[in-house]
Amino acid sequence: MAEKKIILTGDRPTGPLHLGHYVGSLQQRVALQDSCTQYILIADVQALTDNFDNPQKVHENVLQVALDYLAVGIDPHKSTICIQSAIPQIAELAVFYLNLVTVNRLRRNPTVKAEIQLRGFGESLPAGFLVYPVHQAADITIFKASLVPVGEDQYPMIEQTNEIVRSFNRIYKTDVLVEAEPVKAAIPRLPGIDGKAKMSKSLGNAIFLSDSTDELARKVMAMYTDPDHIHVHDPGKVEGNVVFSYLDLFDSNKDEVTALKEHYQRGGLGDVALKKRLIEILEALINPIRARRAEFAQDPSIVMQILHQGTDRAREVAERTMAQVRTAMHLDY
Amino acid sequence: MAEKKIILTGDRPTGPLHLGHYVGSLQQRVALQDSCTQYILIADVQALTDNFDNPQKVHENVLQVALDYLAVGIDPHKSTICIQSAIPQIAELAVFYLNLVTVNRLRRNPTVKAEIQLRGFGESLPAGFLVYPVHQAADITIFKASLVPVGEDQYPMIEQTNEIVRSFNRIYKTDVLVEAEPVKAAIPRLPGIDGKAKMSKSLGNAIFLSDSTDELARKVMAMYTDPDHIHVHDPGKVEGNVVFSYLDLFDSNKDEVTALKEHYQRGGLGDVALKKRLIEILEALINPIRARRAEFAQDPSIVMQILHQGTDRAREVAERTMAQVRTAMHLDY
Repeated sequence: MAEKKIILTGDRPTGPLHLGHYVGSLQQRVALQDSCTQYILIADVQALTDNFDNPQKVHENVLQVALDYLAVGIDPHKSTICIQSAIPQIAELAVFYLNLVTVNRLRRNPTVKAEIQLRGFGESLPAGFLVYPVHQAADITIFKASLVPVGEDQYPMIEQTNEIVRSFNRIYKTDVLVEAEPVKAAIPRLPGIDGKAKMSKSLGNAIFLSDSTDELARKVMAMYTDPDHIHVHDPGKVEGNVVFSYLDLFDSNKDEVTALKEHYQRGGLGDVALKKRLIEILEALINPIRARRAEFAQDPSIVMQILHQGTDRAREVAERTMAQVRTAMHLDY
Repeated sequence: MAEKKIILTGDRPTGPLHLGHYVGSLQQRVALQDSCTQYILIADVQALTDNFDNPQKVHENVLQVALDYLAVGIDPHKSTICIQSAIPQIAELAVFYLNLVTVNRLRRNPTVKAEIQLRGFGESLPAGFLVYPVHQAADITIFKASLVPVGEDQYPMIEQTNEIVRSFNRIYKTDVLVEAEPVKAAIPRLPGIDGKAKMSKSLGNAIFLSDSTDELARKVMAMYTDPDHIHVHDPGKVEGNVVFSYLDLFDSNKDEVTALKEHYQRGGLGDVALKKRLIEILEALINPIRARRAEFAQDPSIVMQILHQGTDRAREVAERTMAQVRTAMHLDY
């Protein structure tokens, strides 16, 4: 039997997870947890790079994210869910990696450049934010992950990681570190309910996995459709119409969706009828997730125990890698 | 009884220690180890920031530096000698500090600016080198040191540390971190044997505590004096004359040194006679150090045991501080 491939994935605990996370990564994790050795990192240290003045928020969302994981079917017996800050070996490794990356190289990282711009750091860019790709390289390599599921905008992070891996192995004459390759998300980015390309908590356009039935209905009813489709009998546009984007993704009856699109384009089909259909479909998807979430939320101490067990397991793996790293670097006194 | 003050000091293990270290810091450490709680950090992680491609050199010099410590009379029962890389809590703390310092602030640090220039990093400045003041702040504060013996050129490092301490305590509403103040070296910088202001291994102008009697004599005989003092009967200059700088420092007979200066200035006193006097004085100083060093060097495993014991003790202290830090940062899950 071939050895299982190792996957590193995870989330920044800055808010509960939403439907975009579900289609973009959570589903994939559930699907891969049998065939791969999967580490799911709750990246609180990384979340602090731009939330360092709000540690309470990061703290609270560790539990929220864990609840979302368990609710969607991530099985802690199959996947190792772990808390980044409780694995100090990652910081230790990141400090060594900082010597192998130039400041200019970090400044040229297109993902970081875009995120610096987005956050408007300007002249007060924290050093921790500039160097977070190095920290991410430590996240990936400490588990010897060869697969990292990421969006295309994150490919520069994998490139940066592999540059570090090659430098390290060459300089320290070792093969302890493993290069990683990106795993493309099965489903492209889910648009926000406002029609923006990306669903995101900070943009306020997200449907959360923890939303109540009422919240879900309210958000779908507020969904962006075709602003020129004013009367039911008007012909409407399907392209850029979020309701149809969602129906394409979530409605299993493709023939009916095709028929609905034709009806909408020639006129006579109202937004409300369409949205009611979508509400039903999303409620069918989210309802069992919501129910499992509520069950786990009844006793957070059990969830924390799951996190502690996963973190202990992950820390052992991290320490094994670090022992090899220290030997390669002649730091074994 | 008032609690003992805590001192953090140490060296980068990039070469054996020399007479400049002895007068600038080692003597002071021996003098302070009774009245203060002293941590002496062998800073191998920091040494790697500009020796990352030569880890073997750093490795070997950990033992050499430890031998020098023991040889000059640092008592491992009084001072805690410890190896930086074996205290991963320092890296962990440094990663959190990186969020509290801007990249621009690091670039403005005059000490780092000077050292970047000195090393000619240019466009390929490693991130680890730029951020090493942050790592140093972690070294100091993880032991809650309030005293740090440094030269004046290192004062910006203490300022940077205290800025981080104040930011941290303010943001995380705590008083776990302690500000540090510099302790000025008792004796100003020792010139190199070539007359340059600073004795340094990399400048090739150092007298090592481990130099043999012959090496010591050879180096003193090559010492820079007065290039215009060609014949014994010529009048000679005392200012900038390294032999007289050393006699001022090491010759306990101040009256005789005054008389020698006068004689030298009016002419009739040769460099060789003066240098022979200095050789005798330095040999009297270094001989017992060399003897103790040779004794310890006979069984390096005992020295390593001393380092392991000190490091274990230091790691416990570091972990206690980190537990407080994690609580303050809401990272106690």
